[in-house]
Amino acid sequence: MSKDGSISASVIKRLPRYYRFLGELENKKVERISSRELSELMKLTASQIRQDLNCFGGFGQQGYGYHVSELRKEIGKILGVDKRFRTILIGAGNLGKAIASHINFESRGCVLEAIFDANPKLTGETVGDLPIRPTDEIERFCLERKPVVAVLCIPKAATQEIADKLVELGIKAFWNFSHYDLSIDHDNIVVENVHLGDSLLTLTYGANNLTE
Amino acid sequence: MSKDGSISASVIKRLPRYYRFLGELENKKVERISSRELSELMKLTASQIRQDLNCFGGFGQQGYGYHVSELRKEIGKILGVDKRFRTILIGAGNLGKAIASHINFESRGCVLEAIFDANPKLTGETVGDLPIRPTDEIERFCLERKPVVAVLCIPKAATQEIADKLVELGIKAFWNFSHYDLSIDHDNIVVENVHLGDSLLTLTYGANNLTE
Repeated sequence: MSKDGSISASVIKRLPRYYRFLGELENKKVERISSRELSELMKLTASQIRQDLNCFGGFGQQGYGYHVSELRKEIGKILGVDKRFRTILIGAGNLGKAIASHINFESRGCVLEAIFDANPKLTGETVGDLPIRPTDEIERFCLERKPVVAVLCIPKAATQEIADKLVELGIKAFWNFSHYDLSIDHDNIVVENVHLGDSLLTLTYGANNLTE
Repeated sequence: MSKDGSISASVIKRLPRYYRFLGELENKKVERISSRELSELMKLTASQIRQDLNCFGGFGQQGYGYHVSELRKEIGKILGVDKRFRTILIGAGNLGKAIASHINFESRGCVLEAIFDANPKLTGETVGDLPIRPTDEIERFCLERKPVVAVLCIPKAATQEIADKLVELGIKAFWNFSHYDLSIDHDNIVVENVHLGDSLLTLTYGANNLTE
């Protein structure tokens, strides 16, 4: 942890993965784990793990290891999984529908409350138990329900304009799946860009550089 | 570039993003771009860009900048976009269908040839123009068509077992969407794990740590 109490970005980036592995251990009724065992599981070095986890208070005890549930609970609190950030999803094409139905938002601190799509043919169709609403209802919904997280599953061309409008309507956090690097010229807004195409290209590079 | 001619992993990781941005410039009929302009667009420093792109031959010319199409073509070749890696997708739930229909595989060096699902009710249903096949046809398909890339959109519990079997059947590259960190104890196999849940948790952390 740095002097002002903040945790470095590189540690933060690894926290969701720690949280996930600790959840799996908890499901397997593992009560405690040493940094060495955790390092083998997560393919990190034991010293990296000790260094990361020491960032937020020495949970590990010499000769005892980490208490799985306690450590997971603590990391969850840091991540904000106990929050209930109101969330909307825009763009109910194949990907939007998959995200809405496949991702467990609530276990990650977000509550998906509404799904919007510009295509009037989709209005009234449901995804899970949420009806798809027309995009011209976004404004009223935001004024009434004050969501803070928006999931963008819309075409590249529309992304920046919609994002700017959503910022005006109070959205603070964007989970962006469009093929577009969203960047918001406002302070105090967070963006997580997911580029599935880039991920596939990284794999293609790997496949292309395997030895025969 | 290192002495043996290989490109460092950190540069490789940025190549898909360069490729994407250069593609956008090409679409806008931009012929050349300076490292300064590219740096503003991509939110990297100009010196970072020069350093990255110098890795594979000095494409930039002093006072001229980079030739957009040539640079993109060269990066594409390094990534392997001109390849046609035969690809199969396993798990045709919401996410699998979304990946199959949403991602342009061919522009990324892969050709999606078959989709499999364990649920017999889905057999015969089509995604795009590919029929969903029962999983017990995977083996024969692999022996006949020799695919090298597999996209895994299956539940966590099944992932390792199926992956190990696919390795025996000749699969060399895994694009893994299950909530499971796939690691293959074989040489000469590449894995790209996509953890959408971790990505959402990173956003939740960001939202949870905004100043009021």
